[in-house]
Amino acid sequence: MIKPSKRSSQLIASPIRKFWPLAVAAKKQGIEVLKLNIGDPDLSLPQEIQKSLRKINLKNLGYAPSAGLIENVDAWRTYYQTFGLNFERENIIPTTGATEGILFSLLTVADPGEEILVFEPLYTNYKALAGLANVILKPITLKLENNFQLPPEGEIIKKISAKTRAIIIINPDNPTGKVWSVKELKTIIKIAKKYNLYIIADETYREIVFTGRPGSILNLAGARERVILLDSVSKRFSIPGMRIGIIASYNKIVMQTILKLAMARLSAPTIGQLLTISALKNSRRYTRKIAAEYRRRSETVQAGLRKIPGVTYNQPAGAFYQVIKLPVAKADDFIRFMLEDFHYQSQTLLVAPMEDFYLTPGLGQQEIRLAYVLESKKLQQAITILKLGLEQYLGQKPK
Amino acid sequence: MIKPSKRSSQLIASPIRKFWPLAVAAKKQGIEVLKLNIGDPDLSLPQEIQKSLRKINLKNLGYAPSAGLIENVDAWRTYYQTFGLNFERENIIPTTGATEGILFSLLTVADPGEEILVFEPLYTNYKALAGLANVILKPITLKLENNFQLPPEGEIIKKISAKTRAIIIINPDNPTGKVWSVKELKTIIKIAKKYNLYIIADETYREIVFTGRPGSILNLAGARERVILLDSVSKRFSIPGMRIGIIASYNKIVMQTILKLAMARLSAPTIGQLLTISALKNSRRYTRKIAAEYRRRSETVQAGLRKIPGVTYNQPAGAFYQVIKLPVAKADDFIRFMLEDFHYQSQTLLVAPMEDFYLTPGLGQQEIRLAYVLESKKLQQAITILKLGLEQYLGQKPK
Repeated sequence: MIKPSKRSSQLIASPIRKFWPLAVAAKKQGIEVLKLNIGDPDLSLPQEIQKSLRKINLKNLGYAPSAGLIENVDAWRTYYQTFGLNFERENIIPTTGATEGILFSLLTVADPGEEILVFEPLYTNYKALAGLANVILKPITLKLENNFQLPPEGEIIKKISAKTRAIIIINPDNPTGKVWSVKELKTIIKIAKKYNLYIIADETYREIVFTGRPGSILNLAGARERVILLDSVSKRFSIPGMRIGIIASYNKIVMQTILKLAMARLSAPTIGQLLTISALKNSRRYTRKIAAEYRRRSETVQAGLRKIPGVTYNQPAGAFYQVIKLPVAKADDFIRFMLEDFHYQSQTLLVAPMEDFYLTPGLGQQEIRLAYVLESKKLQQAITILKLGLEQYLGQKPK
Repeated sequence: MIKPSKRSSQLIASPIRKFWPLAVAAKKQGIEVLKLNIGDPDLSLPQEIQKSLRKINLKNLGYAPSAGLIENVDAWRTYYQTFGLNFERENIIPTTGATEGILFSLLTVADPGEEILVFEPLYTNYKALAGLANVILKPITLKLENNFQLPPEGEIIKKISAKTRAIIIINPDNPTGKVWSVKELKTIIKIAKKYNLYIIADETYREIVFTGRPGSILNLAGARERVILLDSVSKRFSIPGMRIGIIASYNKIVMQTILKLAMARLSAPTIGQLLTISALKNSRRYTRKIAAEYRRRSETVQAGLRKIPGVTYNQPAGAFYQVIKLPVAKADDFIRFMLEDFHYQSQTLLVAPMEDFYLTPGLGQQEIRLAYVLESKKLQQAITILKLGLEQYLGQKPK
């Protein structure tokens, strides 16, 4: 029979979603699975969105312009003004989630075989989309042991070749919850400038920071001409199913190119563009609350982790993720054990294995990512279950 | 400064949308522009969709599964059963419009530098998306003069090389309105079988046929294992802004691959998947009416064209497009003239130039595509304006 292409065949199933069938099987056996595998927020969405839905008139539902509904673009502009960024309409194009923005930015900066620098562990969708776009990702490894700090400049520069076109930075970061310091960002801008690289800045989690004022890399000097900004309403308003984001840049040629890509896919969803307008205009009213909530949850998780012997973990400063290194050989096996062979008070746990978040083979095998998308009480239970599960797992087989 | 990639720089602005700024300028001068450039249906959407909207509960708006909301997938299955096709859930994955299905299918069948056979004139998005995916499209030219009939088998076969992976067929066709005959489809299946090619079958306009029962290429023998079916609710329910389609195949390996692509983009819009369920279940109730309406409009257009000297045109049998060859050297110049220098009773016309719908350089320069997305009365006016505009254009400058 005919075989699919190499680039599609080499794709791996999402590590965030691959254990789902086992979770379904556990549920069938009457076990409640606490799902901390996927960044799918549990919080209620902003009231503005529910209100907008009631008002919407769907007599006709035509294509939105490829460059976006003007009302939506203007709502983003107003939003960015609160962060000191003044975009013209032509600087912003709505996308179908930040995911489409990722794909657009990869296609815009790199031809097949060209390279982009990334930090690992890396949000896995970048790996998948780069594979489809035949772009090579060159990893710079961040280490759990030092809270995922930026390594010395030399470590980054030695990964740059004649084929390097861009550097990707996710801030706050998925999967680590790291918030990049101004000093670190300045180093990245300096390197990008010196080696003439684009910076693809994914700020999906911008407002979910536990201390200080949220901002953008575009607030820093030297960023303006080379940053391609990705953004999304998904996490900020707890509405990932809406599939609305934007791609923005002060670089005119970049935006002219992106507009042609946007035309190639016609338009982003009209309803989603309409429904997010009012929420964007009042962003901080909602996000201040959820940032505080995620901070409380992070503290709950950290407090729980302190009581588990043998685990190592970072201190997130934003987003809603926690990386944990377990005293096991293979996190994959442990996750499977939790779903197939363990439960406590009829509950068990689904988390994401970290190995596929790394590009360097062999890294992250002992690590898991936990998305704290459950209320604190359930999170406490989840950590208890993790502790008890670990004890049983370590007790039953030689380490 | 940094330059964008070659693949993104080589993209052209959509021919369907590129004259838009001139239309805006004309409108500012008080001229009503009859817009026949884009396949954006003017008809009211099915009542079921408006009703579903009122009932929707948005307390939380999480990701849909990458493989689609089961309710949406099942609605499509029920829909296809009325066409004699029995899909299992794993045979269908909802996409963000058929456009995403196009991209997924290109990426699934071909690696960079590999080839796909297409018929020209070709819906331009295939050109743009193939360019981004670095896939080479090999055109087989259909001719307006013989109503865009399939050429002899030999013409097709001589375009096949060791790098050819698939053949694309849009049925009913955009931009021609051609409905492929069973005989033509059988020839294509025969060739695909002999040369081991996938068939990417885009049936977005399936139910908009002017005579006979609508069907699918999958109803024909030999299609099952090699067809990748693309479909969409956009034209069928007059809701292109919803951005909901599907990709479907009986080929297991294809669907396993598509599922990994689907995971890479997380999910298709949740609201759109919810809102289209009820309409899909009652598809023919709505589409019978709109197919009759488009047929009437086509007759109106054809009656008008018969009165214009010097034009050549095909006879569409479905969709809502009409190709017209004008007695002018460059359709582009004529379209610009209509927007900048002509109006009749304060009205003028915006249509799409056909040149960019061809891959072979030089073809289609005299042709335009007209989407009949206005009621018959306005269409009559539009054809009158076309006639008068042509007269003035031809009178003012030597042919």
